[in-house]
Amino acid sequence: MDDRIREHARTLVEWSARIEAGDDVVVEVGEGAHDLGVAVAEQLGELGANPLVTYRSPELQRAYLRAGDAEFDADPDHELALYERADSVLILKGSNNTAGSADVAAERRQAHSRARQGVREARLATDWVSTQHPTRAMAQQAGMAYAEYQDFVYDATLRDWAALAEEQAKLKDILDEGETVRIRTEGTDLTLDIEGRTAVNSAASVAYDSHNLPSGEVFTAPADTAGVVTFDVPMTIQGRRVRDVELTFKDGVVVDYAATQGESVLREVVETDAGSRRLGELGIGMNRGVDRVTDNILFDEKMGGTVHLALGRAYDACLPEGEAGNESAVHEDLITTMGPGSELVVDGETVQEDGQFAWE
Amino acid sequence: MDDRIREHARTLVEWSARIEAGDDVVVEVGEGAHDLGVAVAEQLGELGANPLVTYRSPELQRAYLRAGDAEFDADPDHELALYERADSVLILKGSNNTAGSADVAAERRQAHSRARQGVREARLATDWVSTQHPTRAMAQQAGMAYAEYQDFVYDATLRDWAALAEEQAKLKDILDEGETVRIRTEGTDLTLDIEGRTAVNSAASVAYDSHNLPSGEVFTAPADTAGVVTFDVPMTIQGRRVRDVELTFKDGVVVDYAATQGESVLREVVETDAGSRRLGELGIGMNRGVDRVTDNILFDEKMGGTVHLALGRAYDACLPEGEAGNESAVHEDLITTMGPGSELVVDGETVQEDGQFAWE
Repeated sequence: MDDRIREHARTLVEWSARIEAGDDVVVEVGEGAHDLGVAVAEQLGELGANPLVTYRSPELQRAYLRAGDAEFDADPDHELALYERADSVLILKGSNNTAGSADVAAERRQAHSRARQGVREARLATDWVSTQHPTRAMAQQAGMAYAEYQDFVYDATLRDWAALAEEQAKLKDILDEGETVRIRTEGTDLTLDIEGRTAVNSAASVAYDSHNLPSGEVFTAPADTAGVVTFDVPMTIQGRRVRDVELTFKDGVVVDYAATQGESVLREVVETDAGSRRLGELGIGMNRGVDRVTDNILFDEKMGGTVHLALGRAYDACLPEGEAGNESAVHEDLITTMGPGSELVVDGETVQEDGQFAWE
Repeated sequence: MDDRIREHARTLVEWSARIEAGDDVVVEVGEGAHDLGVAVAEQLGELGANPLVTYRSPELQRAYLRAGDAEFDADPDHELALYERADSVLILKGSNNTAGSADVAAERRQAHSRARQGVREARLATDWVSTQHPTRAMAQQAGMAYAEYQDFVYDATLRDWAALAEEQAKLKDILDEGETVRIRTEGTDLTLDIEGRTAVNSAASVAYDSHNLPSGEVFTAPADTAGVVTFDVPMTIQGRRVRDVELTFKDGVVVDYAATQGESVLREVVETDAGSRRLGELGIGMNRGVDRVTDNILFDEKMGGTVHLALGRAYDACLPEGEAGNESAVHEDLITTMGPGSELVVDGETVQEDGQFAWE
């Protein structure tokens, strides 16, 4: 076994999920993530935790969802009981075909998802962490050779997370105390009001309210937005390619939008509901191990020297106690590169210039 | 997908497990049983049942069991809750390496098993069914080419089970009413007392108290045994090869034993405890789709024209209400072929001659 798989498992179990002896853990093994599953099982054995191993298969899911047309039962007893009693859920993504369930009708998928709100909430109430085993299918989606993609994934994942958490704490402090963020780069001059909002130091650990490995970003929830932003990082939204999205905001609301590709799916997102015309998230990527775009939001939005904004739902962790943030059925991240000539300014102080933080 | 995989799934779900709409089902997918898992998911979707898919992996299990040396927690909450609330468990065996956990110490395996008695009982309390997807590793163990092995498995599995259940009912009636069974073949002349015992018509369905697909046998629990029996079918017991076992019984107890190969493991079995010197089962194979020995007890003991006897634990279903049968930590099946010159006689009536039943 590649030593990096074992190191990945150790990082997941110890740093990210903080598993301890006696913990009841659900390990969700993706179709192509068997090897990571073996390494995680070994870690859990060493710690004296109790794994129950489930199988995450888009092909099984597709077969199930396409087979019937009846209503789905709400929150099946056995599944709900499993997650209600689990301390942690470790999600080992790793697809053998990233389009493995492409021909499932959206309504069918949504109906299944709606029927399982209790299961979803029970999962989210655990110390869950989602991570990604490098597979050939994921390499293909990234347009990379397999060995090259493995290097990419492990460079992004096997970081000195404690050091990054410390660095990110600096930015969190600035955003927590700040009132106004201004982002300037080619095609972008945007002002965001963040007064009273709390930033999350997303350091790939449940101890930091962070549930992705890798992570490496600081994010908050803007209260108001004005100006123009251009997203130069290509995205896949609902299976469709979207390029060069341009959004114009006035009083926090999108008043104009355009894209050189995929404008129809952009329209669907923006016009979903009232909240989908507002921003739910301002995120600042700080993971220098992510050195290129791979068409995978788990990695792309963490890239050092990028900023992402999400249309739609805000995270509760960013809001003052008892205050409702932006609500929406969607949360769609869009990413812009902070290259030469760019500037990120908080309350008149330059925090990042040409994509480099002031302290770098 | 091979049509036979879909037919296998349909037989499993409809005939064997009798799944209905709304049932909460655990589907345990073996490392090499992905395709059968997809077909089963499709069947469950059509029926409107609720699958929770677990992953049955000897490699993960090995990594977990070898990693630690602490005591195992008794019956982890999340796993126990899952099985206590499940209506059915469908076990889709299908190994990629039948020796995948060969280097796990027996004590470690036993300690893990002991700690999970509640989980095991909860599983056995469901409408569970165990079946076998043909893999290359299983073909190799059988000494067969892959396509040849697939034919073998589906010939054994895709039977007219309703018709076989009717045929088996004839033998069940004879055994239920019978008092004495005599088995004669080369190296064997054995008399078994079965008065008051109830035979199980094992027709590969929970509706017949039968939890294996394929099945195809009628079995009961002998109360007393005398004579000599030679088992000509080679077996693998605890990973070790055993050949030509000869047992001599007096007053129901093994008084002499021998084997041309593996006598040491035979000794371990016989000398486990008081009950391991007595028979817990007399089984008569009636599945004519099983036409050869493949070193897999699930198939071997069902072969038409064979008889198997198990040292150790008896099944409750065969005993009069409230009566305890033979108890033991082991249940070890041994098989003998009923070839030319053989005879199976119940209360003086010939039921089978030269391996052919009277009604065949």
